[in-house]
Amino acid sequence: MVEMHVAFAGSPLDRADHLRGDAAALAGLMNARARLLRMEGLDPVVADDGALGWGTLAEAADNAELVFLGLLDDRACFAPTPQQGSVAPPNPRLWQALATLSGPDMAIYGTARSLTGWHARHRFCAQCGAPTVLAKGGWQRNCTSDACRAEHFPRTDPVTIMLVEHQGNLLLGRQPRFPHRRFSALAGFVEPGESIEEAVAREVLEEAGIRVRDVSYVASQPWPFPSSLMIACHSHTDDPAITIDANELEDARWFTRAEVTAAMAGDEQAPFIAPPPTAVAHVLLRWWLDKGG
Amino acid sequence: MVEMHVAFAGSPLDRADHLRGDAAALAGLMNARARLLRMEGLDPVVADDGALGWGTLAEAADNAELVFLGLLDDRACFAPTPQQGSVAPPNPRLWQALATLSGPDMAIYGTARSLTGWHARHRFCAQCGAPTVLAKGGWQRNCTSDACRAEHFPRTDPVTIMLVEHQGNLLLGRQPRFPHRRFSALAGFVEPGESIEEAVAREVLEEAGIRVRDVSYVASQPWPFPSSLMIACHSHTDDPAITIDANELEDARWFTRAEVTAAMAGDEQAPFIAPPPTAVAHVLLRWWLDKGG
Repeated sequence: MVEMHVAFAGSPLDRADHLRGDAAALAGLMNARARLLRMEGLDPVVADDGALGWGTLAEAADNAELVFLGLLDDRACFAPTPQQGSVAPPNPRLWQALATLSGPDMAIYGTARSLTGWHARHRFCAQCGAPTVLAKGGWQRNCTSDACRAEHFPRTDPVTIMLVEHQGNLLLGRQPRFPHRRFSALAGFVEPGESIEEAVAREVLEEAGIRVRDVSYVASQPWPFPSSLMIACHSHTDDPAITIDANELEDARWFTRAEVTAAMAGDEQAPFIAPPPTAVAHVLLRWWLDKGG
Repeated sequence: MVEMHVAFAGSPLDRADHLRGDAAALAGLMNARARLLRMEGLDPVVADDGALGWGTLAEAADNAELVFLGLLDDRACFAPTPQQGSVAPPNPRLWQALATLSGPDMAIYGTARSLTGWHARHRFCAQCGAPTVLAKGGWQRNCTSDACRAEHFPRTDPVTIMLVEHQGNLLLGRQPRFPHRRFSALAGFVEPGESIEEAVAREVLEEAGIRVRDVSYVASQPWPFPSSLMIACHSHTDDPAITIDANELEDARWFTRAEVTAAMAGDEQAPFIAPPPTAVAHVLLRWWLDKGG
């Protein structure tokens, strides 16, 4: 495996899994030294120095549900759960705030956003409809109905995102919601009953009408909007004829290595604008250029 | 990538994603030629010839929610959603039934079990507690509250399962619930905020106190108990000293290549019993033996 840096990975927190189920230990950690991540809803409150803002537990609302993120320099770190969740993709203002954060801060924030957003969207039991309560330091929610008692766990959705190669060219597509001139790797959720390799093949066939072979894994990335695990792959095809699914894609085209190189260099003459460095698609394109033809 | 056969993958169904959102097309497919998978709750009803049992839609209960599995030989295939869900692991009786199925039948059943089990466990909206109804042919559930209208999608939980290698030996462990003398690869869920590689490193450190390096992806498998995506990896360590987390593991040991070979051959003198061929851990061990030292 090639080691690659992906945004939102590389958290410096020790998740200290063994403490989550230990109510006495958790209570002991909720002291004056504990840190509370400052958030507005699901968004970060960035401090004047451009780092994540932290306060103490005294800042938390009286009835706030707090999630135990883990230990950092032996201090317990918590994040507050907002009343309302959202599955909206990040807006430009959020990206501006994130742009000032260090890599480790991005990773801490991503974990906090995924987890607190999950709580906000799961205040009721999907099995019986009764209210649920936070458990195990925020890594579980329990149904409050004695007749049900279902346990619920944070959700992580695996998503495949893939390059398709034909005679040294790459297939990239654009969704209607993309910024002007942006093209990126095709992508889609892994469904029940399929392997990663099968999901890659199905998505490319559905969206672009192309049959792939030799799917290989390249890299993965946690993506907290709202809670994806991006699984980046590479594949080949023998037949480059594109049939676009207009419900999914606005356009899909083959680009030459020179065109991808120009786009990744930010060249204004490039035929498209590459995905930003925070996206695993960017890492995937960089990997493809670096590995050579 | 090495192509490897994993159980529950390789479904012959065309998922026909474009039909799911087309209510008129779906209704048109629910005709006398349509097939209904025979199930008892979440378990398969195996026919006399050892294959999956199929009937017609006339067999479905009047108020049954039906999931559109896809097309097989141009006939639409559906599965009935049971009233009660279960996240219990498969029992020996279920494995006996599955043992008679072909690979493609295993894959069809796995998809049906994952999906119908998800419906049975998600009859209420996690966001507001109101009842939900099946939508998009069973690939979605919608909240019935006008104030909420949340859309819910089938859940697939990524799980890492990993080999750890040190000087040609392999680390394997046993959980208390395992059959007598069984050892297998360590495993654990990917959590919000971590990559696959980070999840592998965390799990091995938590369960066995071992720090790994050079994590690489090997294979993946859909596992319908209840809805996992198994992500099988290989890694190395430089320090073989084991510290077991007794909450997770009953034992963990290093095994030589000869010992793993004997176990995979079913040798009674082997120091442990290998995981069964249906488990991706078996495929992972076979891959490791085949690739050589």
